[in-house]
Amino acid sequence: MGTATAPWKLLLLHAMESNSHLKHSSFFQLATIGLNGRPSNRTVVFRGFQENSDKIQINTDTRTRKIEEIKHCPFAEICWYFTDSWEQFRINGRIDIIDGLDPDPVKLQIREKSWSASSVKSRLQYLGPNPGLPCLEQQPLEFSLDSSTGPVDAFCLLVLDPDQVDYLNLKSNQRLMFTSRLSDDGEKCWTSESVNP
Amino acid sequence: MGTATAPWKLLLLHAMESNSHLKHSSFFQLATIGLNGRPSNRTVVFRGFQENSDKIQINTDTRTRKIEEIKHCPFAEICWYFTDSWEQFRINGRIDIIDGLDPDPVKLQIREKSWSASSVKSRLQYLGPNPGLPCLEQQPLEFSLDSSTGPVDAFCLLVLDPDQVDYLNLKSNQRLMFTSRLSDDGEKCWTSESVNP
Repeated sequence: MGTATAPWKLLLLHAMESNSHLKHSSFFQLATIGLNGRPSNRTVVFRGFQENSDKIQINTDTRTRKIEEIKHCPFAEICWYFTDSWEQFRINGRIDIIDGLDPDPVKLQIREKSWSASSVKSRLQYLGPNPGLPCLEQQPLEFSLDSSTGPVDAFCLLVLDPDQVDYLNLKSNQRLMFTSRLSDDGEKCWTSESVNP
Repeated sequence: MGTATAPWKLLLLHAMESNSHLKHSSFFQLATIGLNGRPSNRTVVFRGFQENSDKIQINTDTRTRKIEEIKHCPFAEICWYFTDSWEQFRINGRIDIIDGLDPDPVKLQIREKSWSASSVKSRLQYLGPNPGLPCLEQQPLEFSLDSSTGPVDAFCLLVLDPDQVDYLNLKSNQRLMFTSRLSDDGEKCWTSESVNP
């Protein structure tokens, strides 16, 4: 909640802006903990901040392995490296999974919004065969989807609520560590410290 | 050891070649498990394969947090996304830490080789203040290093020995899962399977 913008969010918005000519500037790596206790790491796409907050949205398929992993351990770290400005954001936090069965109508609305905001091409992926399962040849690969259709069952929204951000600028050789704590009225407060790169 | 090249290594060498015009094509994200049990994720630089093997080398500073993390849990996953060819390699394996106190003379030699192969600029970083600690202003920031000097104490080599590689090509929409097992004579054998992207 709160009207104050997290201080690292301004840096991140600036980095996104100055790297926006690169298609891959909205891609980052999301690390979670695998069911076998080993780290798991994959590239995902930034789908915006949740309205008026510093929470980061990611679309994914409920059938991917990361869903089970996050259910088992909800903590994750984003590593977002901007290849043009040489800036890195390591964003650590807890992930909330919003699928079609979520009992909260507000969350379902947010999920629907994220579905509507995605391209028809990326929507069609959720109708494809089960990700990670062996590829069966000869299966029909033609799907169609009316653009007005709401989110399909496999569509799922991940919302990462950051509680620590480690910012590194390799051009200026500056590093800032942002740490949050909850104030008495439950509002998230950020402090920052300059640390050695 | 064995003379057969891991099948995913050929794909990786090809991806490195076709993205070599981009400076950041040798950067990837390394996920480990933090001491608090949460995922940890940062960008590091590929420093080559260990001679005649599929083991991946990374230089780092012994004073960084990842060293303690890897000592506590040696498993890691590399996520290497090639921004020009749209290929992703998720490389899961176990990391061996080689610092200056390693009792194995062969490993010390490999560490020395990696030190010699790095630039004077990157060598100087290991003489800087303790990474991650609060920045003290006004400290002298001038160091010098004779180019013939061997590895300094803080210099450390990480060697990741892969046992699973998940390859994804977003242009052809192909995904291959490479899995290793040890044969009866202790040699690593790879099998691959085509899975749904």
